[in-house]
Amino acid sequence: MEFKSLAGTAGEWLKGSGPESDVVISTRVRLARNLADFPFLTRATAAQRKELEDILRKEIKASGALQKDLYYPLDGASPIDLQFLVERHLISRDLAASEGARGVAFGEREAVSLMVNEEDHLRMQVLKSGLQIQAAAEHINKIDDLLEKRVDYAFSPQLGYLTVCPTNVGTGLRVSVMMHLPALVISKQIEKVFYAVSKINLAVRGLYGEGTQASGNFFQISNQVTLGKSEEQIVSNIASAIPQIIHYERNAREALLTQSKVKLEDKVWRAHGLLRSARVITSEEVMDRLSDIRLGVNMGILKDLSIKTVNEIFIQTQPAHLQKMEGKELGTLQRDALRADFIREKLGEKHKPGDKN
Amino acid sequence: MEFKSLAGTAGEWLKGSGPESDVVISTRVRLARNLADFPFLTRATAAQRKELEDILRKEIKASGALQKDLYYPLDGASPIDLQFLVERHLISRDLAASEGARGVAFGEREAVSLMVNEEDHLRMQVLKSGLQIQAAAEHINKIDDLLEKRVDYAFSPQLGYLTVCPTNVGTGLRVSVMMHLPALVISKQIEKVFYAVSKINLAVRGLYGEGTQASGNFFQISNQVTLGKSEEQIVSNIASAIPQIIHYERNAREALLTQSKVKLEDKVWRAHGLLRSARVITSEEVMDRLSDIRLGVNMGILKDLSIKTVNEIFIQTQPAHLQKMEGKELGTLQRDALRADFIREKLGEKHKPGDKN
Repeated sequence: MEFKSLAGTAGEWLKGSGPESDVVISTRVRLARNLADFPFLTRATAAQRKELEDILRKEIKASGALQKDLYYPLDGASPIDLQFLVERHLISRDLAASEGARGVAFGEREAVSLMVNEEDHLRMQVLKSGLQIQAAAEHINKIDDLLEKRVDYAFSPQLGYLTVCPTNVGTGLRVSVMMHLPALVISKQIEKVFYAVSKINLAVRGLYGEGTQASGNFFQISNQVTLGKSEEQIVSNIASAIPQIIHYERNAREALLTQSKVKLEDKVWRAHGLLRSARVITSEEVMDRLSDIRLGVNMGILKDLSIKTVNEIFIQTQPAHLQKMEGKELGTLQRDALRADFIREKLGEKHKPGDKN
Repeated sequence: MEFKSLAGTAGEWLKGSGPESDVVISTRVRLARNLADFPFLTRATAAQRKELEDILRKEIKASGALQKDLYYPLDGASPIDLQFLVERHLISRDLAASEGARGVAFGEREAVSLMVNEEDHLRMQVLKSGLQIQAAAEHINKIDDLLEKRVDYAFSPQLGYLTVCPTNVGTGLRVSVMMHLPALVISKQIEKVFYAVSKINLAVRGLYGEGTQASGNFFQISNQVTLGKSEEQIVSNIASAIPQIIHYERNAREALLTQSKVKLEDKVWRAHGLLRSARVITSEEVMDRLSDIRLGVNMGILKDLSIKTVNEIFIQTQPAHLQKMEGKELGTLQRDALRADFIREKLGEKHKPGDKN
C-alpha cells in the first residue's frame, strides 16, 4: 500500500478551522449498516466475508459516494499500514485488529471513510473540522442514500436498521465530537462536566474512540445508544449539549487568564520550549505538550504559531506516520529521535546557529 | 548598604576559568583565628564583641590585606543584604543568622573575605576559580601574616591556634573544593565516590557549606579536622584526592557520550529550552537545569553559550540578588517571574518575534 504521500499531510478534518474550532477539533458522524442477504460477521464464513467485500467494494464504486475509486483491501496489510490508517482516524482500531477480508474506501480529502467488514458489514463515517453536526449528518445521509439505492440493508420496521451490537440498532447513528478541554482539566472541573454529560446519555471516550484513554486533553463526546431514538433526537441531544461544554471550557480559560495568567503563560511557553529543544520524545509527551501549545495559540499567548502547524505535528508524529515518512520500520528510540527532529524542523528550530548536531 | 552595583556581577572566583574548570568551580581556603586578649565569642559580652569588631576592623584596614577599606558592619543589616552576601559566598550562613556586633571586609574582586565575629573572632577566606589549592593557601597565609604582625592570636605551643570548635584547633585551616559532578550523579556512582572520600577524612557538603544540601550537582569537598595536622598535610591530603574525583567525573562523562549520547544531548537541550522559555521558575529548578547546561557546555553540546553566562545566571538569579537588582523586596511569585525574565534575557530569548509578552 502506498500511503507515503499521505504521511506528510493532515486530513481535511484536521485543518483547524470550522465553527468553534478553539474548542472543537472535529465532528464525526457514522452509520452502521448490514446487508440483508448475508449473516452478521459474527456468524459469516470466510467465503461470505470475501463475497461481502467484493459486493460492497463494487457498489461503493458504482454509487458515486466517493469521487475516485479508492478502496484499500486490508487483509494482509502490514501492521504499519493498519496503524497508519488508525492514526488518521480512517479506520477503527477494531478493523485494524481483526482478520479476514475487509477494507476501507476513503475520499481524497479524507472527509469520508467507508469501512467494509468492521463490526457490521458497512460502517460509513464523515469527519468535519470544528463543530458541524448538522452538515456531517446531512453528508452521511446522502452517502447512505446513494448506497441504499444499490444494496438491500437489513432493516426491521419495528427496530430500524439491524446491527451486530444492540446499542447500534435503530438508526445505526453515532455522532462524536472531539473536544479539546485543557482549561477544564487544569481547573479540575472536567469530572463534573463528564458527570453531567453521562446524565443525558452521552459517553466520553479517548482520542481513538471506544476503549482508548484520553490524552492531550482531547475527549470524544458521543451518543451512547440509538435504539428507540430517531436520527433527529440523537442529533439534537448532542447538538444541544456541546455548546454548553464549549461555554464551560471558555469560561475556565477566561478564569485562568484572570486568576493565573503568568502560570498559564509559563505552562504554554515551557511546552513550546520543550518541543523546540528535545532530542528524543515519546508520542505521549508530544500529545500533552501540544495540548498546552494549542491552548496557548487559541488564547493568543503564542502568536506566531498556527493551529495548522500544531495539527500537522499532532498527526504526523504518530509512530506509523513517522515510519511511513521515513519509508522503513524504526525502533522506539529511533522513532523518538526522529519525532524530536521533525518537531524542531516544524517549529523552525533546526539548522539554527548554535545547533550543530 | 549598597550592593546593587555588585548584584549584576559575579565574583572573581566564578569567572569560570582556572585549572580543571570543567569539573572544579572554585577553591576556597579559610583560616580561623581568635585574639588572645578576649574570650571566645561563646563567652564574650556584647561590649567585648563590639570592642573586637572595632579592633579587627581597624587592624584589617591598617594591615593592607585588602586594597581598599571595604568593611561592612552587619549588626542591623537587612535580611536581604545578609542573604545577598551568603549567596555570593562572602559570608557564612552562620554569620548571617547570628546577632550583635559583627561584619565582613572583602576585596573588590571578592577573592578575599574577612569575617569578624563569626564562630571565631576572625575567619579569613580566599576563593579562587578552578582548582588552585596551593595558590589559595599561599594567598591566605600572606594575609594571615599581615594580620599576625598587628594582633596577638590565641595560640598554644602544644595545640596550635585555638578555636571555638575543637575540629578547627591547630592550623584553623579548611580547604574546600567546589566540584560539579553531574555525570557521577547521572551514572549513580556518586555514593561510591563519597564513601571513598570519607575514608580519607574528607567531608562532602552542599553549595553553601556546612549543613546545606547539595543542589545542581555541586558538591564541596573539604578536610574534616585540623588538630594534629600540619598545613602541609591538610593541603596535600585534599590536593591528592581531588584529581582522582576529577578523573572519575571525566570518565563518567565520556561513558555517557559513548553509551547514551542522544539521551545526554536531549537532557542538555531540554534544560536549555526550559530556561529560555519559562515565565516563572524557582531557584532550585534553575540550579538543576543550569547543572545540565553546564555539563552541555563543557561537553561541547551547547557551543554558543559560555560558562561565564552560565555562572552569571547561577549567581544573579538567587533571591536576594534579584531583589537587589530590582531595588525592592519581592514576593515569591514576583521573584520567580523576574528570575525567568532575567534568564531569557541572558539567553538572548527576550524581545524576539513571536514573544510579545
